[in-house]
Amino acid sequence: MKKISLLGATGSIGWQTYDILRSHPEKFKLVAFSAGANIEKTRQIIEHLQPELVSVKAEQDAITLKKDYPHIEFAYGEKGLVDVATHPDSTVLVNAVLGSVGLESTLAAIRMGKTIAIANKETLVTAGHLVMSEARKYNVPILPVDSEHSAVFQSMNGENPKQIERIILTASGGSFRDQSREELKNVTVKDALNHPNWSMGAKITIDSATMMNKGLEVIEAHVLFNMPFEKIDVLLHRESIIHSLVEYDDTSVIAQLGTPDMRVPIQYALSYPDRLPLVGGKRLNLAQIGQLHFKEVDFDRYRALKLAYDAGQAGGTVLTAMNAANEAAVALFLQEKITFLQIEEIIEQIMNDHNNILLPDLETILHVDSETRKTVEGMVK
Amino acid sequence: MKKISLLGATGSIGWQTYDILRSHPEKFKLVAFSAGANIEKTRQIIEHLQPELVSVKAEQDAITLKKDYPHIEFAYGEKGLVDVATHPDSTVLVNAVLGSVGLESTLAAIRMGKTIAIANKETLVTAGHLVMSEARKYNVPILPVDSEHSAVFQSMNGENPKQIERIILTASGGSFRDQSREELKNVTVKDALNHPNWSMGAKITIDSATMMNKGLEVIEAHVLFNMPFEKIDVLLHRESIIHSLVEYDDTSVIAQLGTPDMRVPIQYALSYPDRLPLVGGKRLNLAQIGQLHFKEVDFDRYRALKLAYDAGQAGGTVLTAMNAANEAAVALFLQEKITFLQIEEIIEQIMNDHNNILLPDLETILHVDSETRKTVEGMVK
Repeated sequence: MKKISLLGATGSIGWQTYDILRSHPEKFKLVAFSAGANIEKTRQIIEHLQPELVSVKAEQDAITLKKDYPHIEFAYGEKGLVDVATHPDSTVLVNAVLGSVGLESTLAAIRMGKTIAIANKETLVTAGHLVMSEARKYNVPILPVDSEHSAVFQSMNGENPKQIERIILTASGGSFRDQSREELKNVTVKDALNHPNWSMGAKITIDSATMMNKGLEVIEAHVLFNMPFEKIDVLLHRESIIHSLVEYDDTSVIAQLGTPDMRVPIQYALSYPDRLPLVGGKRLNLAQIGQLHFKEVDFDRYRALKLAYDAGQAGGTVLTAMNAANEAAVALFLQEKITFLQIEEIIEQIMNDHNNILLPDLETILHVDSETRKTVEGMVK
Repeated sequence: MKKISLLGATGSIGWQTYDILRSHPEKFKLVAFSAGANIEKTRQIIEHLQPELVSVKAEQDAITLKKDYPHIEFAYGEKGLVDVATHPDSTVLVNAVLGSVGLESTLAAIRMGKTIAIANKETLVTAGHLVMSEARKYNVPILPVDSEHSAVFQSMNGENPKQIERIILTASGGSFRDQSREELKNVTVKDALNHPNWSMGAKITIDSATMMNKGLEVIEAHVLFNMPFEKIDVLLHRESIIHSLVEYDDTSVIAQLGTPDMRVPIQYALSYPDRLPLVGGKRLNLAQIGQLHFKEVDFDRYRALKLAYDAGQAGGTVLTAMNAANEAAVALFLQEKITFLQIEEIIEQIMNDHNNILLPDLETILHVDSETRKTVEGMVK
C-alpha cells in the first residue's frame, strides 16, 4: 500500500489522480491533499477517500469543512500546501498544482525523503537545479507525470542512459497547428481552448497552442534526464499517439504509444516500477487510426518554443522570468486583455530585459517570479 | 571480449553478423564459423577474422582450404556444423543457417551452456518445445535476431512479462502487398524477389510475400516469449519503421523503431544487455518519412498466415510438416516449377493430410521434415 500526498487535487491532473487512487484502493491510500476553492470536489474526495489532512485555499473554507468533518484535520493557504506535502504518513508526493506555487512544498517533501511524482513542470523549469540537487542529496526519485516525460522514462526502462543519443518529444501542435502565423493574429480564447487531442486545464491548453508547453517540457527533460539541449528534439505528431521517443547509439529508437489518456502516465508514476491495469482504459488500435503523421517543427511559427530553448541554454533566473511572464501573459489572454500573439511578444520582451543570475537560490527565484508577474501586469494597464 | 561461433556465415544474416564482428574487434572475437559452398566469402572471413575452426559444406573444399590456411582447423558437412556450434572457446552461438538444418547443432550448443542468438526461425518453429526446455534446463538465454522479435525483446526491457497484454508484430506486407489475391495468380519469381523494404535472402523474401514469414514469426514469438497465440497480433505497416510493439495492462504500448537495417537486431543480440554504436548506421528521421501507415491483416488475402496460426494452435509435428512443406514449395517456386499461389495450396494440403504427433522428439521431427519434403517434391513430378 503506497501512501500518497496530493497537491492540487481538484485541478485537471489532480482530479485524474483521484480517479486512479479510487480505482485501486488496494494499492493506494490518499493521506493528505490540497485543493483550491472548489469545495464541492473537495468534499467528494474527502467522502470517497477519507484522508487525514486536507488543505484549501481560504481559511473560511477550512473552518466550514472542519464543522462537517470533525475527524479530519484541515489547513489552508501556503502553509497548508507544505503541511500536505510533508505529511509524516505519506511516502509519495504527487505535485499537481499549477505554476510556481508548488516549489517550496516540493523541496520540503524531498527533504523528508518522499518520492516525488511531478506534474508541475514550473517547479523543474524554474528551480530544476535546486530540486535535482536536493533529490540526489536525499536519494529521492523524481518521477515524471507529464505524458511526454513518462514516455521517455518508460522508453529508458532497463537501458543505460549513457547510450542515449537523443530524446524526441512529440508535439501535437496545439489548437492552431493548421493556422499560419498570419492567421494567429485574430484567434480567440475559445478557439485556443479547443485542443484536438488532450483534455487539459485552460493554462496548459493555451501553452500547447503557443507551444510554450513543449518548451517547458524540453527544459523539464533536460533537468529530469540530465540531457544537454542539443540532444532534445521536438517532433510534430498531430495524432498524439507516440507520446515520445528515445534514440540509442545503435540507432534503435524506443517509444511509448497509447490512446491519449493522462491517467496512463499518472498511474505509471504511482505504480512504478510496476504497472497496473488501467480501469476503463482504451486500448490502442493502430489499424483503426490508420496513419501517423510527423513533421519538423518550425521555430519561426512556434516562437515560444525557440524562446524556451534559448532560456534553457542560458539557464539561471531567465527561466523563472520566462515562465512567470508566460503564466502572467496567458492569464491576461484568458481574461481577453491581450491577443494570442502578444503572449510570446511579452515573454520575449521580459527575456530581453532580464538581468540573468545563474544558479539562483529559492529566494531569488521567488523574487524574480513575483517581480516579473508585476511587470507583465503593468504592461497592459 | 565475447567469443562467438557463427553458423551460416556467408548467408544474408551471417554476412551482416560478420560485418558487425569486424566493426567491433575490441568487443567480439569470431572463434568458429560454418559456411556453405561460397568459398570466396569463406576466405574473406578467414583472412579478416582469423578464426580457429571453419566448416564448409563439401569435404573437398575443406581439404583445399586447409592447404592455404594450415594453421586453421577445417571441418565439413553436418558434423562440421556441430563442431562449430560446440567449439569449446565460444560462449555465444549465432545460428544464422536457413531451414531446419540448424536444429541439432543448436541443441548441442545449449547443452554446453552457450548463449544462443537465433536467426534461424525454423529451429524454434519445429522444435520450440525442445529448444526452450533445454534452454531452461541449462539456464541459457535464447536471444532473438529477427528484427521483429528483437523489437519485442527490446520493448520488454525492464518490464514484468506478466503485465504484457499483447505482442504486435508488424508486417510490411511483402512484395505483393498492393496486389489483390486475383492478381497473385500470375506473379513471377522476379516480382516476388523485389521486396520494398528489406534486403534479405531469396527464401525469406518469398516467405515475406506469402506472409508465411510472419506466420513463422508468430510461432517464434509464442515460443520465445511464452505467449499464447490469442495475445500475438500481426499489424500491416508498410514502411517497416516500427519493428514491433508490446502492449501492457495499463494500455501503454512500448515499441522499437528504426531505419530497416538487420544489423541493428543482430548487433543487439551480440551486445545485449548493452548497446553499441552501429558503425555506418542510419538514424531514424520520422519528419522526413512523414507518415506511417497501419492496416489490419486480412487472413483471406494472406492464407499462409492463417495456416501458421492454425499450426501454432495445434502444436506438434504439424509445425514441422508446415515448415518443411513451405521450404520445399518455396524452392519449387524459385525453380519456377510451381506458381506463387501453389505455395500455400501445397502447405494447406500437407497440413490437412498430416497425422499430428504432439511433443515430438528430435528424431520424429527430423523424420517428418524429410518425409514432408519428399511428399512435396513428389507432387510436381
